[in-house]
Amino acid sequence: MQNLERMIDQGTGRESADIVLKGGCFLDLVTGELVASDIAISGDRIVGTCGDYTGKTEIDVSGKIVVPGFIDTHLHIESSLVTPLEFDRCVLPYGVTTVICDPHEIANVLGTEGLQFFLDSALETIMDVRVQLSSCVPATHLETSGADLPIERLMPFRKHPKVIGLAEMMNFPGVIHKDPIPLAKLAAFQDGHIDGHAPLLSGYDLNGYLATGIRTDHECTSAMEAMEKIRKGVHILIREGSVSKDLHALMPIITERLSPFIALCTDDRNPLDIAEQGHLDYMIRTAIANGAEPLAVYRAASISAARAFGLRDRGLVAPGWRADLVVIDSLESCKADMVFSAGRRVTSELFETRNFVEPVGLDSVRARQVTSADFAVPARNGETSVLGVIPGKIITEHRRYQLPNSGNQATVDLTNDILKITVIERHGKNGNIATGFVQGFGLKKGAIASTVGHDSHNICVVGASDEDMALAANRLSVIKGGFVVVEDGNVTGEIALPVAGLMSLEPYESVRDTLHHLRQAAFALGSTLQEPFLQLAFLPLPVIPHLKISDKGLVDVDRFELIP
Amino acid sequence: MQNLERMIDQGTGRESADIVLKGGCFLDLVTGELVASDIAISGDRIVGTCGDYTGKTEIDVSGKIVVPGFIDTHLHIESSLVTPLEFDRCVLPYGVTTVICDPHEIANVLGTEGLQFFLDSALETIMDVRVQLSSCVPATHLETSGADLPIERLMPFRKHPKVIGLAEMMNFPGVIHKDPIPLAKLAAFQDGHIDGHAPLLSGYDLNGYLATGIRTDHECTSAMEAMEKIRKGVHILIREGSVSKDLHALMPIITERLSPFIALCTDDRNPLDIAEQGHLDYMIRTAIANGAEPLAVYRAASISAARAFGLRDRGLVAPGWRADLVVIDSLESCKADMVFSAGRRVTSELFETRNFVEPVGLDSVRARQVTSADFAVPARNGETSVLGVIPGKIITEHRRYQLPNSGNQATVDLTNDILKITVIERHGKNGNIATGFVQGFGLKKGAIASTVGHDSHNICVVGASDEDMALAANRLSVIKGGFVVVEDGNVTGEIALPVAGLMSLEPYESVRDTLHHLRQAAFALGSTLQEPFLQLAFLPLPVIPHLKISDKGLVDVDRFELIP
Repeated sequence: MQNLERMIDQGTGRESADIVLKGGCFLDLVTGELVASDIAISGDRIVGTCGDYTGKTEIDVSGKIVVPGFIDTHLHIESSLVTPLEFDRCVLPYGVTTVICDPHEIANVLGTEGLQFFLDSALETIMDVRVQLSSCVPATHLETSGADLPIERLMPFRKHPKVIGLAEMMNFPGVIHKDPIPLAKLAAFQDGHIDGHAPLLSGYDLNGYLATGIRTDHECTSAMEAMEKIRKGVHILIREGSVSKDLHALMPIITERLSPFIALCTDDRNPLDIAEQGHLDYMIRTAIANGAEPLAVYRAASISAARAFGLRDRGLVAPGWRADLVVIDSLESCKADMVFSAGRRVTSELFETRNFVEPVGLDSVRARQVTSADFAVPARNGETSVLGVIPGKIITEHRRYQLPNSGNQATVDLTNDILKITVIERHGKNGNIATGFVQGFGLKKGAIASTVGHDSHNICVVGASDEDMALAANRLSVIKGGFVVVEDGNVTGEIALPVAGLMSLEPYESVRDTLHHLRQAAFALGSTLQEPFLQLAFLPLPVIPHLKISDKGLVDVDRFELIP
Repeated sequence: MQNLERMIDQGTGRESADIVLKGGCFLDLVTGELVASDIAISGDRIVGTCGDYTGKTEIDVSGKIVVPGFIDTHLHIESSLVTPLEFDRCVLPYGVTTVICDPHEIANVLGTEGLQFFLDSALETIMDVRVQLSSCVPATHLETSGADLPIERLMPFRKHPKVIGLAEMMNFPGVIHKDPIPLAKLAAFQDGHIDGHAPLLSGYDLNGYLATGIRTDHECTSAMEAMEKIRKGVHILIREGSVSKDLHALMPIITERLSPFIALCTDDRNPLDIAEQGHLDYMIRTAIANGAEPLAVYRAASISAARAFGLRDRGLVAPGWRADLVVIDSLESCKADMVFSAGRRVTSELFETRNFVEPVGLDSVRARQVTSADFAVPARNGETSVLGVIPGKIITEHRRYQLPNSGNQATVDLTNDILKITVIERHGKNGNIATGFVQGFGLKKGAIASTVGHDSHNICVVGASDEDMALAANRLSVIKGGFVVVEDGNVTGEIALPVAGLMSLEPYESVRDTLHHLRQAAFALGSTLQEPFLQLAFLPLPVIPHLKISDKGLVDVDRFELIP
């Protein structure tokens, strides 16, 4: 009540506002107008627009445009390789004041402990981190995950103030075929938000999927797909991540007419891309540069996103609305000069006010030690299945080659760029190890290894040498997870990701710098991929066509079964 | 879960849907297209669009258009003079599948008992009746109401499944001046919806009012007023009632661009208008006839209304959305051929399935018996204040006349159409009686009296004869509330409204017919007003300028005080 009294006094101008942005204009997402006006802020809320105000703090924003804070409607913070608190410090300055995350990666490693870590972190971040409860842990029966999250384990989190609903229901075949496990989760969240994930699903199957109350989808990769879904009431979350990039294909749906029914998201965006290009601001300026109407883009980035997820307090620059504000140079540049999160100006000092959240999962890499012998593949006659990597895509091709044999073993074929790929179970569950072959990395020697491998995050190793593969895999246990590059028996690059084997304990700046070095070390092996670790991370993902590999073996995704 | 299984089976077309609307098309409020498609319904939900379906029940809608059910975003059901269950039966067939009501009238008479009656009724109606908790009972200190609802009495209702938030915060001067009574209510509903009511409020005062989190307003009477409010983040509820008619003035805001931020409402609509013109369907066809884009109008009538109030399950014709559907002949006519409410076809039999809700407040008229002597006004020298009635408006003029005296009494002046107006406290609280003069009714003899008088609903009598006024007032106690017409010592017309003195126990058809007769009886007295009882009902309302009368006396609304 005391707050309301202050807000009324400051909104009516009887009392100086806490903060006033003076002399600029704001983009009114209702009328589309640029309105010249001071903006008065009291506490966490905008209390005055369309007028002149005096403030206890007055900030000159003349020549600038104020827009509502951006909302990332679907992402996995883990993909930034830093903790939620570091993600906050890294991404909020780009104007991203709200993120709706699915802690799917950490949940696959740590289960409820991972969810709790994200929720605890969400109570500390300056940006508003909302958490959706991961719906598909484990993602499939074709791999060994570190945890599972049946409905009974999700329910205790359902009413947490930072929880916004059920996260992306990836198991769309399960939904359509009435698998009781996903259906129990859908049933429990009927009165909340249920996020979708249904690449290429269409027609009657899409109707059946949506009949369960699923309302959003971030997997559209063509305008045609998006148009069918949007016509069926799906709020389309346009994605531009580090791997999956759909913005250009979906440009046709970024129109004023459709703007109430679209939003933006990054899904997976790595720290190098964030540093080099930005975050949602990059999507906004790219969309406008490609001809989208600014009103449609900025609506998608804020008010329409807020409405899609029932966040009714944000998305407009207007009295009574949450003071999540971005001060930009121009609608086209979308360069954030200044950011306000719930009325607080975002500065490096502001981040210092947060309480540290104790990291979890520091002992999550429980893989057995391996030797070169563990990577041996028996010689075989005839053709062998090979994962065909396509640069910049997470789908693979199912290729077949006659591999050379050496004695009683099948070997790599460097002239055809065919390397070994091995997945080693690392949750201390069964010690599974499976080896296959992959084409497209370009390595001429050495090995790279990682504990980031969607969705179960077992150890994945790609290499030209069994010895280097063993060294790389074992090194991951020493550094408690991360990325490793080995060349001729030496570790030539590495980054430790000890938080569940997914996230660093370091500041994002040093993660970014280390990744630069790591990329160079991989290039030194001959890597022809721009982002070999990113590409590696999706090779165990058995829900994406066509050929993948898990700790249980090669997976024919089209048949959704292991290859014997 | 069983329901979800059925919905999936019916949505995918593996099983016949419960109901299929065949051969028509639907208006897609996302793209604006008319889409030729069957519509499959399973249980309370749409499960299939954009395809062909078979159904256990198939209904031919060829040549017709299916649109989402209409949402009345602000109304007082009491103004229909029938109970919520009768309102349901009367209005749902026009396609109004959701109403967001404020039981402000019954709450002023009965307090929490009235709220409970509406909530009990809301659990029985076929249409979805959502209730906002009346924020301003009593409306002012200038009148005697039957009850008061401080925050402590509202809180127990806050989590009721049919409660949607805090109803129209009419006390905008109180808010701006930080009156602790309205502020306590605003503070308690910060995380829910707070409905506004702020006629002509603008500039800094409007900012201060909105700073409290108020999000909607139905009181805009000009496009200029609406544009300021919509630019300040207010969702504009365009009103067309029986008394206040704003649709024509607000036509300029019914555009595609603004359509996500507008909605429709009736506020107060009487059964004669409903019978003669319709309900929201009348607003829709009138707006289109006056040049509004159909997409904008239909969005305002459904999806945009739903979003404004956080009703996330309705407003589109799409799989997974609530099967609230209206089958119309054309977008322009908006004539409802068939209506579906949560998947149930609306028929007279369907209404028979509802449980009766025991009426309340049957003994609410507790006025003292009066005689002609109670209507005497002492003779006075000089001018007297006279309420100047303006046909079709609820504002009055403050006029001044020199009245004729008869002996020691001031009398009516029929040549100048100046009659007596008396308000008699009827809640059994203090027996107050106050008499003044009114101009504009046209009665040449007799009296009319009513227990419907906003907002305290005391007895209001207007008459040319003190004896007839006394008879009319006393008759209201006999019939336990209602409207009465008296001519030369005889009751020549009446309708009993025994539910809190506001609503009939009869079917709406007989209420409608009785009102016809009542209007004739009033015309026989010389009434020049089209709706004398409607006009009478707003004369005690001391929050509407300029001169009003309550049981405490004449109210100078501009000074917000009683005239001594």
